[in-house]
Amino acid sequence: MTGRFAIGIDYGTESGRVMLVSIETGEEAAWALIPYPNGVLESALPNGTALGHDWALQDPRDYIHVVEQGVPQVLKSSGVKAEQVVGIGTDFTACTMLPTLADGTPLCTLPEFASRPHAWVKLWKHHAAQPQADRINIIGRQRNEKALEMYNWAHSSEWFFAKALQIVEEDFAIYQKADKLIEAADWIVWQLTGEERRNECTAGYKDLWVKGSGFPSKEFFAALDPHMANVVAEKLATKFYPLGAKAGGLTASMAATTGLLEGTPVAVGHIDAHAGVPACGVVGPGVLVMIMGTSLCHMLMARERKIVEGVAGVVDGGIVPGYWGYEAGQAAVGDLYAWFFRAFGVNADEITAKAAALRPGQSGLVALDWWNGNRSVLMNADLSGLLVGATLSTTPQDIYRALIESTAFGTLTVIRAFEKEGIPIDRLMACGGLAEKSPLVMQIFADVTNRTIELPKSLQGSGLGAAMHGAVAGGAFTDIAAAASQMGGVSGQAYHPNPTAHVIYQQLYEQYLVLHDLFGRGGSDVMKKLRSIRASA
Amino acid sequence: MTGRFAIGIDYGTESGRVMLVSIETGEEAAWALIPYPNGVLESALPNGTALGHDWALQDPRDYIHVVEQGVPQVLKSSGVKAEQVVGIGTDFTACTMLPTLADGTPLCTLPEFASRPHAWVKLWKHHAAQPQADRINIIGRQRNEKALEMYNWAHSSEWFFAKALQIVEEDFAIYQKADKLIEAADWIVWQLTGEERRNECTAGYKDLWVKGSGFPSKEFFAALDPHMANVVAEKLATKFYPLGAKAGGLTASMAATTGLLEGTPVAVGHIDAHAGVPACGVVGPGVLVMIMGTSLCHMLMARERKIVEGVAGVVDGGIVPGYWGYEAGQAAVGDLYAWFFRAFGVNADEITAKAAALRPGQSGLVALDWWNGNRSVLMNADLSGLLVGATLSTTPQDIYRALIESTAFGTLTVIRAFEKEGIPIDRLMACGGLAEKSPLVMQIFADVTNRTIELPKSLQGSGLGAAMHGAVAGGAFTDIAAAASQMGGVSGQAYHPNPTAHVIYQQLYEQYLVLHDLFGRGGSDVMKKLRSIRASA
Repeated sequence: MTGRFAIGIDYGTESGRVMLVSIETGEEAAWALIPYPNGVLESALPNGTALGHDWALQDPRDYIHVVEQGVPQVLKSSGVKAEQVVGIGTDFTACTMLPTLADGTPLCTLPEFASRPHAWVKLWKHHAAQPQADRINIIGRQRNEKALEMYNWAHSSEWFFAKALQIVEEDFAIYQKADKLIEAADWIVWQLTGEERRNECTAGYKDLWVKGSGFPSKEFFAALDPHMANVVAEKLATKFYPLGAKAGGLTASMAATTGLLEGTPVAVGHIDAHAGVPACGVVGPGVLVMIMGTSLCHMLMARERKIVEGVAGVVDGGIVPGYWGYEAGQAAVGDLYAWFFRAFGVNADEITAKAAALRPGQSGLVALDWWNGNRSVLMNADLSGLLVGATLSTTPQDIYRALIESTAFGTLTVIRAFEKEGIPIDRLMACGGLAEKSPLVMQIFADVTNRTIELPKSLQGSGLGAAMHGAVAGGAFTDIAAAASQMGGVSGQAYHPNPTAHVIYQQLYEQYLVLHDLFGRGGSDVMKKLRSIRASA
Repeated sequence: MTGRFAIGIDYGTESGRVMLVSIETGEEAAWALIPYPNGVLESALPNGTALGHDWALQDPRDYIHVVEQGVPQVLKSSGVKAEQVVGIGTDFTACTMLPTLADGTPLCTLPEFASRPHAWVKLWKHHAAQPQADRINIIGRQRNEKALEMYNWAHSSEWFFAKALQIVEEDFAIYQKADKLIEAADWIVWQLTGEERRNECTAGYKDLWVKGSGFPSKEFFAALDPHMANVVAEKLATKFYPLGAKAGGLTASMAATTGLLEGTPVAVGHIDAHAGVPACGVVGPGVLVMIMGTSLCHMLMARERKIVEGVAGVVDGGIVPGYWGYEAGQAAVGDLYAWFFRAFGVNADEITAKAAALRPGQSGLVALDWWNGNRSVLMNADLSGLLVGATLSTTPQDIYRALIESTAFGTLTVIRAFEKEGIPIDRLMACGGLAEKSPLVMQIFADVTNRTIELPKSLQGSGLGAAMHGAVAGGAFTDIAAAASQMGGVSGQAYHPNPTAHVIYQQLYEQYLVLHDLFGRGGSDVMKKLRSIRASA
């Protein structure tokens, strides 16, 4: 195969996907999906050590495994030569973080720490640090900490310092032993290049780092825990690099393992959702990009910075340099559907066909889509799923459809929050696994939001975006906008709203909002109480 | 087999059970379970005519089928001779009612009416007459109608006049053609004896009939619908007979069909739940008897009449002559569990074993048990089921256990309503299918209520009670108390509360009550809105 190519490596929740992409057309020459051998560790470590409620860990060796297995596969199956590869980009779930030695060795790979849960990678959906997140928010507000204002005073339990504080409090020896606490997004780039070059995007959205002013003060961290006062100076990098920057060249040993050339340019790390945006051809304001997978990320750019309820972060240049990048999200979307299929042993295709035959409103059900907490306007991991309206005639397809509808209502709630602050949303785009595989889900999202949803040329947006940044890092394009116009863009495929369905969904959405505010805004604390009963049971 | 026997025929929701019982010991000599060939008609008539939402009909020929099949079977399998049978008693679901000609011929058996849904039997759980029930209650209150005060101003959609009014409004020709509107409990006795002898119990609990003052006035019915003004004079009996009274002797043709003697005494009809009380040996105040099947009936006697929230009826002599009989209930208990098994295709035994292994509170779930509306303290068929606290770790057994717990919380709510009015409950007894077959359900009820639950000797309480009343009608006993001390009583088997579990259940019950009041007492009308969206969809 002739031409020039870039490699994108998309690190997801269950697997890594390696893509070899033409930089002339954006088309995939080859791809390889490499499941993580240890998957997500939720109930126990590989050696059987039990984990608590809401834990979710990973094994960093699995990330290397993806490189070692996936890169040779795509080269081999495409016939592309190493010298045709202009650059490598990666993207990662976030905040997914780990403690390492000064040379990057993960603590969990040292035999003396292998049985210590806090030595392992904390995956984005590790939610056991909610008490720490709560305290960060209380103390942040008390101190009027500027970095927290950028995040609506709502540091998620998923973010870096909640996870770090949990280590400090629950296994201080691990914290002491760790020379670095680092995002997995940056750790993998370090392994590829031998250089610890941290990226602005992950740091901006997940680590309380603000361009120009850096991390919160030593006094803030001391207020969280005196042992943590010097966390920034002792364990974090101080310099951060913009998206598309070159982190370094591929090391000799990685070149040998993968079959690529030593010195092949590698871009700095990236968050998966954010990498998907330019892959859709979106490099400016007005287009809401929905990355729809296990969870749903809403990405939007604007010229101004406003305070929008539920926005997890607003980062200068966080998506594309020159614009404020807004990120909102829903904690469980595909994960919620998968829970339903798995828990009740229903066949996804059969139940989808039955659910598609239902009319909107026919089931009499409405759900709150908080099976994994609320990560959008309410920012509260203690919230939980609710289903109301069940009768003895309720069928599994009724429930499945209500779950899909609830996730669409969650997205509509995010859209309304942006509109309320005057940030325009002219178009919707969707990418990710659900956009590719679930026409019923997409149609319901179109009907609920009453908007056309366009799909990009490549439905593997994050991986393509990673490859595009690899191409920019390799000097094939002057900037990401140039790469996007060459490699990204829309497919022409779109879902159009059905006005009749939308009328019914408006009525159902009113009920969703009533429940949303009742359980989410303090009208009832039943969900919190149930969590605490469960924790003590 | 020597000795004397009585026959009890227990008409349930799905089948009729014929029992042949020794009047010396109360032991069953033989029994036969005869499923109704047409079962419950919920979506269509046997000829395919579609039914609306919330309909539930039956075919009256199925009731005769139970007699014709079941009585010969029990005689044959026991070897008991016809002359050894001293009497026959029946009990029936209620209000289950039908329109007939003057001679008792059901309108649905006439070819010209076979396709008209309103010509068929309306089963107790036909809930499509909620608008009619609502109007009965509004007008009853406006007119300060005494008969409605006896029912807490809450005429259920399941009761007689809601169902009758639905016929008037939706198929007036059927109403006009009907010479009689009659309880199935009395219709079957009419078929057995050739005599229309209506019983005080069903009339008192379900038909707004008050001993001493009769039915509501003509003006009340005219206010509901002018066409219905003369319903009492034109279509209802005026004389009612106490429990245990003899309705008549078995007809020659019924004798020929069954193998019994012509003239065998038949007791007046009875409600299934009420018949079960003396079968437990309970013939006076202080003992709450729970008849636990598809739904749950709470039966309690007291010397005084008080207004207790959620009591569906207080009838003088309605359970045992001489006491006020209180009836409360929950609309779906076994039905709710069966819905769960069926809808999700889970194996009942497997899921029960898994649910039994869970600790109280461990699931973090709580449910409102209103899958079939609320027939207890809130008396509102528009209410629906709710589940809250779901996470991505929630399992089917978590949900099943939460459903069981929700039904136990419903019973605790009923107990508290009695206690609030100073009506003592010294002991709990349980009978019915769940008491017999579901130790997990019984243990959870004991743990939630923090009371020991005793089981009667016979777990087929309603059928035994029916047989006991047959024996009284046949002159074998002077009254039901005498029959109860000979034939009924406790078994010695009991479920004792676990104090540790109860502590957790107190916490969960607090959350149940919050939701109960929020959704049931006007804090949120989401359930009503969802019903109305569903109806219009």
